[in-house]
Amino acid sequence: MEIRELTEKVIQFRDDRNWQQFHNPKDLALSLSLEASELLENFQWKNSEDAIAANNEKMKEELADVLMYAMLFAYETGINIEQAVEEKLQKNILKYPVDKAYGVSTKYTDL
Amino acid sequence: MEIRELTEKVIQFRDDRNWQQFHNPKDLALSLSLEASELLENFQWKNSEDAIAANNEKMKEELADVLMYAMLFAYETGINIEQAVEEKLQKNILKYPVDKAYGVSTKYTDL
Amino acid sequence: MEIRELTEKVIQFRDDRNWQQFHNPKDLALSLSLEASELLENFQWKNSEDAIAANNEKMKEELADVLMYAMLFAYETGINIEQAVEEKLQKNILKYPVDKAYGVSTKYTDL
Amino acid sequence: MEIRELTEKVIQFRDDRNWQQFHNPKDLALSLSLEASELLENFQWKNSEDAIAANNEKMKEELADVLMYAMLFAYETGINIEQAVEEKLQKNILKYPVDKAYGVSTKYTDL
Repeated sequence: MEIRELTEKVIQFRDDRNWQQFHNPKDLALSLSLEASELLENFQWKNSEDAIAANNEKMKEELADVLMYAMLFAYETGINIEQAVEEKLQKNILKYPVDKAYGVSTKYTDL
Repeated sequence: MEIRELTEKVIQFRDDRNWQQFHNPKDLALSLSLEASELLENFQWKNSEDAIAANNEKMKEELADVLMYAMLFAYETGINIEQAVEEKLQKNILKYPVDKAYGVSTKYTDL
Repeated sequence: MEIRELTEKVIQFRDDRNWQQFHNPKDLALSLSLEASELLENFQWKNSEDAIAANNEKMKEELADVLMYAMLFAYETGINIEQAVEEKLQKNILKYPVDKAYGVSTKYTDL
Repeated sequence: MEIRELTEKVIQFRDDRNWQQFHNPKDLALSLSLEASELLENFQWKNSEDAIAANNEKMKEELADVLMYAMLFAYETGINIEQAVEEKLQKNILKYPVDKAYGVSTKYTDL
C-alpha cells in the first residue's frame, strides 16, 4: 500500500471525530514519544527473545500507534514521509561509507 | 511509494554495512524511543509555531529517523506495517464511536 | 545533604537567571523525559559494562540533569520529594509482599 | 531527610525482595526513562493547569518512581547524587553567566 493511502485512512478517522483541533505538532510529538516508550516497555527487565515471546501482539499495536502519530505529525507539519526518509538515507550513505562502517559498531552511534 | 519498497531501501543500507548483527529488537525499540525524544526536543520551552519556525528541517530528519527505526523494528519482528496500522485503526473505530467521540478531548486518552 | 537544601541551590540558580517564567510543569516534565532519554542513550547498542566503561562521566552529568528537573518539577507543583518517595515505597511494600515477590522477575513489572 | 537515608530505604526494599539481580544499569536507565514518560503522559493533550487539576496524586507517584530509579541507578553505578548535582550546577553557572542568561529563553536549550 502507498504511504499516502495509509495516511489518508488515519486522517479520515481523525476528522470523522473532529479531533484535528487537538493535534498541534507539539502534542503530536509528545504523543509519539509516549507511544515509543510504551513499545519499549515490553522489553523492560527482559531480553529481546523473552519480550517477543511474551508480548508480540501488544508490540504490534504499539508500533501501529507510533506510526499513526508519525503520519499525523508529518501531515500537520507538511512533511512528505517518503521524501524525508529517502533524504535521510542519502545523508547516512555519505556519513557512513561502506568501507569504513562495515561491521563496525563502535562508530555506530545512530542509524 | 509502497511502504515495502521504502523498507527495502532501509534494509539495503543496513545490510550493505553488515549492521544486522546489532539490530536486536530491544535495542531497536530503545533507539526508536531515543529518536522520538530528539524530535520532541525541538519543542522544549517552545509552542508549536515557534518550534516549527526554528527547526523545520531538523524535525524532518528526526521524523525520518523515527520511521527508519520503526521499519527496522517491524522487519526484525515480522510485523507487517500496513496490517498493524489497519488493525489498530479498526480497533480505534470500535473504541471511539463517532457519536460519542465527536469533538471530545476529555475521554481522548490515546489516538 | 538534605534534599531541601540541594533543591534550594537549584532554585537559586534558576531564579538568579529569571527563568521561572519558562518553568511551567508541562515543559519541566517534558525536559525531565528528554534528559532521561539522554541518560539512556549512553546504553544504545551497548551492554551495561561497555556503556559504563565508555561514558561514566557523561552518565553522571545526565543523571544530575534528571535530578535537577525532578526537583524543579516538585517545587513548581508543590510535591514534597521525601514524602512522595516514602509513600510510594509503602504502597510498593503492600503491592509486592516479600514472600511472593522474593527473587521473582516475572511479575515484576514496575519497581 | 538526607538523600543517603532515603536511598537506603529504597535499597532495603529492593534487597528484601532479592531484586538486585535484575538491576543492571541499562535496564535501570530504561526504567527511569519509562517512568519519566508516564509522568509526562499526564500532560498529553492538556496544558499545565488542567493536567495538575486532573491528576495531582498520580503525578506525585510517578515522580516518586522517577526518583527511586534515579537513586537505584546512582547506587549501582557508584554515582554520588549530591556531588553529581553540585558539579553540574557549577558547570551550568559557568555556561550561563547571569548577565547573559537573565530572562533569556532563546539560548536556553538546556537547564
